[in-house]
Amino acid sequence: MTLLLLSNSTAPGRGYLEHALEEIHSVAGEAREILFVPFALADHASYTAQVAAALAPSGFSVTGLHEADDAPGAIAAAELIFVGGGNTFRLVDALHRHGLIDPIRSAVAAGIPYLGSSAGTNVACPSLRTTNDMPIVQPPTFDTLGLVPFQINPHYLDPDPSSRHQGETRELRILQYLEENPGPVLGLREGTWLRRDGNRLHLGGTPAGGRLFSRGSSPQEIPVGTDLSTMLSSS
Amino acid sequence: MTLLLLSNSTAPGRGYLEHALEEIHSVAGEAREILFVPFALADHASYTAQVAAALAPSGFSVTGLHEADDAPGAIAAAELIFVGGGNTFRLVDALHRHGLIDPIRSAVAAGIPYLGSSAGTNVACPSLRTTNDMPIVQPPTFDTLGLVPFQINPHYLDPDPSSRHQGETRELRILQYLEENPGPVLGLREGTWLRRDGNRLHLGGTPAGGRLFSRGSSPQEIPVGTDLSTMLSSS
Repeated sequence: MTLLLLSNSTAPGRGYLEHALEEIHSVAGEAREILFVPFALADHASYTAQVAAALAPSGFSVTGLHEADDAPGAIAAAELIFVGGGNTFRLVDALHRHGLIDPIRSAVAAGIPYLGSSAGTNVACPSLRTTNDMPIVQPPTFDTLGLVPFQINPHYLDPDPSSRHQGETRELRILQYLEENPGPVLGLREGTWLRRDGNRLHLGGTPAGGRLFSRGSSPQEIPVGTDLSTMLSSS
Repeated sequence: MTLLLLSNSTAPGRGYLEHALEEIHSVAGEAREILFVPFALADHASYTAQVAAALAPSGFSVTGLHEADDAPGAIAAAELIFVGGGNTFRLVDALHRHGLIDPIRSAVAAGIPYLGSSAGTNVACPSLRTTNDMPIVQPPTFDTLGLVPFQINPHYLDPDPSSRHQGETRELRILQYLEENPGPVLGLREGTWLRRDGNRLHLGGTPAGGRLFSRGSSPQEIPVGTDLSTMLSSS
């Protein structure tokens, strides 16, 4: 199983996916045809065109899953599956409504590399319960792909000590998650990613790193480069 | 029907509910016994104690709904119902699980004043679909009390032009809501509130005001003091 789970698609001042291109090439191997899952945004065609334009200079061709007559068949035949960001609730609703959860799980188990960013990273977890997104649609269930056995919080954001905003900080939201669920939750700061190759898992990307939240422990800083393989057997 | 729907419970540098005390007295009228709904936080007893301590100097006594043997009966007999903030998903799950939706609707329809803050304001809308909270539990449905016929976004936050964060702005999240739902959505900046008296509705609180999002129109600034009564017949 090969996964590349990006916190976010676009680094400040850089093009779409530009900060992660080298890593994307690494997980793609020989693959040059990307099957793109655009369901987290409303306009599937223009989202797919944007991704295709961004990845064409790198030698990738991109097809949107919304164009497939036989979506499960397209998934099974894919060289690489890329689930893009947007609204996680809309994405999860579409994956369930179109019956795509099991086909994607099977394809990834069979070795087709999975690339996710933001919402696409969230749905690689057991559930959407650690998304930052607004619940604009009600999916039939919060359960998602479970390609890793723990939760990720993409776009993880440290508290801003200068803020006068009275809404919950991200850390407080995740601690509330741990009140209701066993955890753990890995917050991925922007520019970072998780890479899984079989039973190996590590944190990559910018030095910002990650932050790990576990029940009964203080939150823990995770530097980029950390081997997190033990988290694959955590549940 | 008397509603006071606060964006937030605590203004910077002030005590719990302090910024809204005068308005709370106004909706309370002769009522001095508050029935508090603490289900948006995990620790009901300490949450209720915090609220009781904050409101005691103003002459209010506070009882937590979690202590009632007969919760629907306690709701029907209440002088004022206050639904506190925290996590909206946890609150909605509890309201449905304990069968409290219809009792609260009936009590409010019968004239018992309803005070909400943050999550307690969100659940006064038709659904939780415009909450900012993390979906830490899966409620049986996103439907909520529907005490007003439109959605509110509490803690409404303007985009920060200096931010390098790549997550969606609040405005973009609400525009995504309008892609999937007819709307409208009223963003309540911190320190503001909506007050409903029968068929009259207006925006109160600090000068920060609100921002109204409707399908097919540009977002519209709503100054404090604006009469919004026409929104009560909007759906």
